[in-house]
Amino acid sequence: MSEKIDHMESWLGQALALLATGDYDGLSSALESVHPSDLADLVEQLEDDQRLALLRHVPSDLAADTLAEMEDVERPGELLLQLEPRRTAAIVHEMADDDAADLIGDLEPEQRAQVLAVVDDEEAAEIEELLTYPEESAGGLMTREVLSVSARLTAAEAIAEIRRQAHEDFDFYTIFVVDPDGTFRGVVSLQDLVIADPTTPISEITEEPPAVVTVDTDQEEVGKALSRYNLASLGVVDALGRLVGRITFDDVIDVVEAEATEDILRFAAVSDEEEIRGTTLDAIRSRLPWLLLSVISAAVASSVVFAYQSTIEAMALLAVAMPVIAGVGGNAGTQALAVTIRRIALSDETVGERMGVIWKELLVGLVNGLVMGVVAAVLGLLFTDAGVMFGVVVLLAMWGSLLIASFAGAFIPIFLERIGVDPAVASSPFVTTLTDLFGFFLLLGLATAVLM
Amino acid sequence: MSEKIDHMESWLGQALALLATGDYDGLSSALESVHPSDLADLVEQLEDDQRLALLRHVPSDLAADTLAEMEDVERPGELLLQLEPRRTAAIVHEMADDDAADLIGDLEPEQRAQVLAVVDDEEAAEIEELLTYPEESAGGLMTREVLSVSARLTAAEAIAEIRRQAHEDFDFYTIFVVDPDGTFRGVVSLQDLVIADPTTPISEITEEPPAVVTVDTDQEEVGKALSRYNLASLGVVDALGRLVGRITFDDVIDVVEAEATEDILRFAAVSDEEEIRGTTLDAIRSRLPWLLLSVISAAVASSVVFAYQSTIEAMALLAVAMPVIAGVGGNAGTQALAVTIRRIALSDETVGERMGVIWKELLVGLVNGLVMGVVAAVLGLLFTDAGVMFGVVVLLAMWGSLLIASFAGAFIPIFLERIGVDPAVASSPFVTTLTDLFGFFLLLGLATAVLM
Repeated sequence: MSEKIDHMESWLGQALALLATGDYDGLSSALESVHPSDLADLVEQLEDDQRLALLRHVPSDLAADTLAEMEDVERPGELLLQLEPRRTAAIVHEMADDDAADLIGDLEPEQRAQVLAVVDDEEAAEIEELLTYPEESAGGLMTREVLSVSARLTAAEAIAEIRRQAHEDFDFYTIFVVDPDGTFRGVVSLQDLVIADPTTPISEITEEPPAVVTVDTDQEEVGKALSRYNLASLGVVDALGRLVGRITFDDVIDVVEAEATEDILRFAAVSDEEEIRGTTLDAIRSRLPWLLLSVISAAVASSVVFAYQSTIEAMALLAVAMPVIAGVGGNAGTQALAVTIRRIALSDETVGERMGVIWKELLVGLVNGLVMGVVAAVLGLLFTDAGVMFGVVVLLAMWGSLLIASFAGAFIPIFLERIGVDPAVASSPFVTTLTDLFGFFLLLGLATAVLM
Repeated sequence: MSEKIDHMESWLGQALALLATGDYDGLSSALESVHPSDLADLVEQLEDDQRLALLRHVPSDLAADTLAEMEDVERPGELLLQLEPRRTAAIVHEMADDDAADLIGDLEPEQRAQVLAVVDDEEAAEIEELLTYPEESAGGLMTREVLSVSARLTAAEAIAEIRRQAHEDFDFYTIFVVDPDGTFRGVVSLQDLVIADPTTPISEITEEPPAVVTVDTDQEEVGKALSRYNLASLGVVDALGRLVGRITFDDVIDVVEAEATEDILRFAAVSDEEEIRGTTLDAIRSRLPWLLLSVISAAVASSVVFAYQSTIEAMALLAVAMPVIAGVGGNAGTQALAVTIRRIALSDETVGERMGVIWKELLVGLVNGLVMGVVAAVLGLLFTDAGVMFGVVVLLAMWGSLLIASFAGAFIPIFLERIGVDPAVASSPFVTTLTDLFGFFLLLGLATAVLM
């Protein structure tokens, strides 16, 4: 793709030259074949005044799509505030309502009001309604622009109706069928409609959708439903069962990617508020609480070492073994944790299946703990002049540490999910602290009992 | 969704009862409204003989879709071997070619041959061709069942042609346009076609697709292209530019989920060969090499401690500080690593932007390292009777350790990606070892110099 980007960068130079000379017609025609996602990438690299100049003079539909596709600028909505009011209104008019809501929803309350004040009243009301839904709910994802036909039409009438609605520039992967009062009845695919006999009543070719979501369904559930049933588009209903919007696959791909990022960041104890491309200050602030938590949990594990200082004074080799046991134990805990968290994220399982996971991880810890214990003991005997009993202590401490690590790595996230806490965000410190605490206790306690 | 599943479980009981009494017509009509994804979930919970009985007596198209949607059984393709040859042929006939290739591709070579021997010759040849592409390439994802029309037709002729091809039961989100020699010319959307004047030449409403992939494009690139341009369907061409297949959004959602799982598992040092629902033995085998690597890297870090044994004997409190510095340093390194790896996974960036990331992480380490150093020093002074200089040593060791952790967490994955190594799989042990090594060296080296 970088070839394409190189090619486009030279092309951006041309566009900027046309802009500088005021040749706006030339600019519009030069931009005709450019995809908004590509244009967005290039616009993101420009200075503020160049960005504004481009958004002022490209066709307003292209400006709208480009703004909607900008991902690396923190608040592209702020650009709307810097444009002339009439231009802002024209761009928002061309924008899909969900894109406009995302853009405007990121702004401060007074900025939102400023933008909405210049937008067409009806559009402003629609955007404000979308903004009432939580960002990560089906309502926050959906567009209200739905292609729908009455269940009472024939196939031919429905096609005429679609032609009529089609100038709205919807993506109509799915045609929704509603009763006269707006109740969602089902879906009819464009392909069924095209190949049906023209006189067929729509109700006859309407299919019950395999999944319907309400405005307050969490986006993760929305993603699961769409992915499970391979749907291009999903109807969203209100509490009364009336069709109020739709969510399409492209929104869901973004959600799946965002949820994966969130899981990885949380797993690594980075707050999910940290934007991948946020500022340094944001990064510092979002990570510090987790580091504070980790210093406390490390101090708890260290308290065991504190209690055994006299043993360490007598045999400093134990301090050499400590990082090895903590390192391998931590790794084993992380392995069990990652597999379990991903398992929870991807599927609905019964309690029995979850118990099976814990049992499986215990077995893994039992076997791998024994192997690693033997390896560590052999390394200790090879590279130090400590006796066989030191090796036995290391073996047992490593074994016990991996057993606890595997158990905690599976049990803690399953338990946290059960009591309603996100396992991805909260498991890691517990698992590490438990593993270290137990590993140090075994190593130093056994050494005190056996070697002193 | 669990309500739905409860409801369906009672329904499955009915289906099994119908099956037991041999009422296959009753069974078929009871199954009419069930989605194959739901049926697959239930079938997965049955015993082998019940599974086979169901697959034998449900309509063959439902059997095909159900087999294709089974995700929790290790090799659903093996069921094809246990059915009567004629039934197997009928099921494969109803299956999309890419689903059939996935199912059969999982089998051992001799099993593959057995299944392909009973399948219709032409279909077997198509499946074998798909099996020649690597599983994670565009060729491995695509279906050869493409709805395509000649660029020479008019809109009306094209609609007639689509009606003719439509009995093949394609999902036609996108209609591909080809030249007489099969060269891929572009796409025409069904909506443009429906609303176009019937006499319009197809070539006039054909659009250049924003992205085309070749059979050997990696699935991650395929996912990026489809997600970037919000496409429902992507054309796949061979080396000569001829259209050979298509990839749809639902395949890509699966890919995005699979890549996220892979990233999280690799990040946690679990081999990506480990299936989330694989056997205990597989889990033991896939994790052991990483634990062996971690014992070696921990031993390297421990060698510093080994060198300073006499210092520890004189002041065992240093052994108490070690886990705190290693724990917090490890956490800071993981944070920088997770953000950087996700950044690499999600976007194509220039070398300059990547350098900016390293610089940003260094700043984060500088600030957070100082804060955590002060916290650790204060904790040390509060809870022990060591002097102020011990606090200063802890502060400096923590600060230096976090600085290295942040730098390594950003630099190592960027460097590995640059030399063509997957950063997600290989970064973690390097970062941990470097951080521990450096942290222990600072703590014990400074203590030896200042406190001894």
